Amino acid sequence: MKRSGEFEWISRYLSPLAGENSFQLKDDAALLPVPDGSELVVTQDAVLENIHFLSDDPVDTVAQKALRVNVSDIIAKGAKPFAYSMALGVPDSWEDHEMLRFCKGLEADQQQYGLSLTGGDTYRSPERLCVSITMFGTVTKGQYKSRMGARAGDLLVVSGTIGDGAIGLKVATGELLVKAGEAKNHLSAYRLPNPPLPLAKAIANHATASMDISDGLLGDCRKLCEASNVSARIERSQIPLSGAVEKQIKADENLWDAVLAGGDDYQCLCTVSPEQWQAFQIAALDDGISVSEIGKITGDGASKIYLTNNGVSLSQTVESFTHF
Amino acid sequence: MKRSGEFEWISRYLSPLAGENSFQLKDDAALLPVPDGSELVVTQDAVLENIHFLSDDPVDTVAQKALRVNVSDIIAKGAKPFAYSMALGVPDSWEDHEMLRFCKGLEADQQQYGLSLTGGDTYRSPERLCVSITMFGTVTKGQYKSRMGARAGDLLVVSGTIGDGAIGLKVATGELLVKAGEAKNHLSAYRLPNPPLPLAKAIANHATASMDISDGLLGDCRKLCEASNVSARIERSQIPLSGAVEKQIKADENLWDAVLAGGDDYQCLCTVSPEQWQAFQIAALDDGISVSEIGKITGDGASKIYLTNNGVSLSQTVESFTHF
Repeated sequence: MKRSGEFEWISRYLSPLAGENSFQLKDDAALLPVPDGSELVVTQDAVLENIHFLSDDPVDTVAQKALRVNVSDIIAKGAKPFAYSMALGVPDSWEDHEMLRFCKGLEADQQQYGLSLTGGDTYRSPERLCVSITMFGTVTKGQYKSRMGARAGDLLVVSGTIGDGAIGLKVATGELLVKAGEAKNHLSAYRLPNPPLPLAKAIANHATASMDISDGLLGDCRKLCEASNVSARIERSQIPLSGAVEKQIKADENLWDAVLAGGDDYQCLCTVSPEQWQAFQIAALDDGISVSEIGKITGDGASKIYLTNNGVSLSQTVESFTHF
Repeated sequence: MKRSGEFEWISRYLSPLAGENSFQLKDDAALLPVPDGSELVVTQDAVLENIHFLSDDPVDTVAQKALRVNVSDIIAKGAKPFAYSMALGVPDSWEDHEMLRFCKGLEADQQQYGLSLTGGDTYRSPERLCVSITMFGTVTKGQYKSRMGARAGDLLVVSGTIGDGAIGLKVATGELLVKAGEAKNHLSAYRLPNPPLPLAKAIANHATASMDISDGLLGDCRKLCEASNVSARIERSQIPLSGAVEKQIKADENLWDAVLAGGDDYQCLCTVSPEQWQAFQIAALDDGISVSEIGKITGDGASKIYLTNNGVSLSQTVESFTHF
């Protein structure tokens, strides 16, 4: 096996990714500067081989996805991500070239999202690659958006398109067969979600509540409703779909389950008052992010999701992905 | 299998551990308040079953050790720990009573060290329990102690006693056989290290450089020397030992290897100028922490460790634990 020692890996591959308050990863900890007038936001999500990603996913995209699922949480709170800490469980099968490629993925996304590494930990994880990222962001004082602020009458809004990740996973596992030329797009949607970085500002300024969609649109919407003690009406025909997903759904209506409840979207689910809706749309579009109204919040405190298709009630049993 | 769902586990067992800016873990992220005049310190260490702890270690002590290895890093920087985020990989074998006991361990140490949970992640980790903790502390602005500040002439100082964890591991694995009545103490030293919380203030006020000893006294001392571009002389007879470890070493001199290079100490290794040494000792003893001078920093920039026993040079080949 061609593998350098643990400390060599840290100094060769990880130190170049460190930020200026991280002592080139030569210290036990790092300082996290918080500008005056800002608050620090923290979130942590881990990804494990064959649980959150597949063994044949390229390791650079695994690194990127590990960052992006966390970036997604920070953006949804109206905050700007700036740094992350990482505990990396390295499988026994890894050689130097895997570590190099993994770190190339980190580097690419550090540039794309404006991040630096604060530090963390590397350790042996014999069977499975495990990447546990803790992500830090800053938000203007008082503008953090929780799940708790949704009010009756608010519009229910999502960014981007929904279902690409879940349909992509079906293609990746072979459960859904598509034409050779179409597979690449689907796989890429699953492996490399695109959390809408520029939307953070519009969320901070105009949303009443916000979260990211990771476990499934319906289930995540229910969590937002429970936190805010409201219910929601969702009109399925208003859910924004990519051309690729629309095509698959036309061929098989059952794929709606994956779109509605599959998760892996990493788009934002926000509530916006009707008075702020226009300003929110303009702010989003100014930054190149599409946003769509998919329903409304109702005052009914039962935390229910009422799903319709062209106004006709639908029953939906599966709402989200759960680990156990 | 008697196991509740993922979201039930979070609300039943983890939410009660959450701090006031963590939205009862019902949000995607948390706010981390930093008092004026303070800086935020962050560190992250993960522990994996049968890599960092043994499968038959009680799960409450696994939880405590996962916290304490991180508390140890924060203290060594002169900072006061106050909060942590956790990604918890739950093995398929776990039932509710394991989760309950694990959280009892977290709760006990939250009280002991003044911590609260900010949030994190739970996921399936089929073969092995995995606990990835990111720990946060605050330090007075400008008083963070890195590994970089050691100067020629400084005294080399450790807190507590050295080698208890490494000897305890040998007892736990059956490599070292001890009398039945003695095993408990050794096991406890390995499972439940005692990072010296009150020493943070003395370190912040009086040390020139500081780190915790986790991978082995000699290897960690070398890292400090490399970061500070100095060397160190260590007199083995001055290394503080517990009565239990002293007894084992008297029976087998070879156990010095474990004491010097075994790690799992979670005590502080500091450098202190001769002028500050008395004030450092008084501050430490006032807070009930014993500190011992074990050697001196020399100006030689070779980052070497010169080990002596009663003044006679010793050669030492193994310096620290490394994962790969």
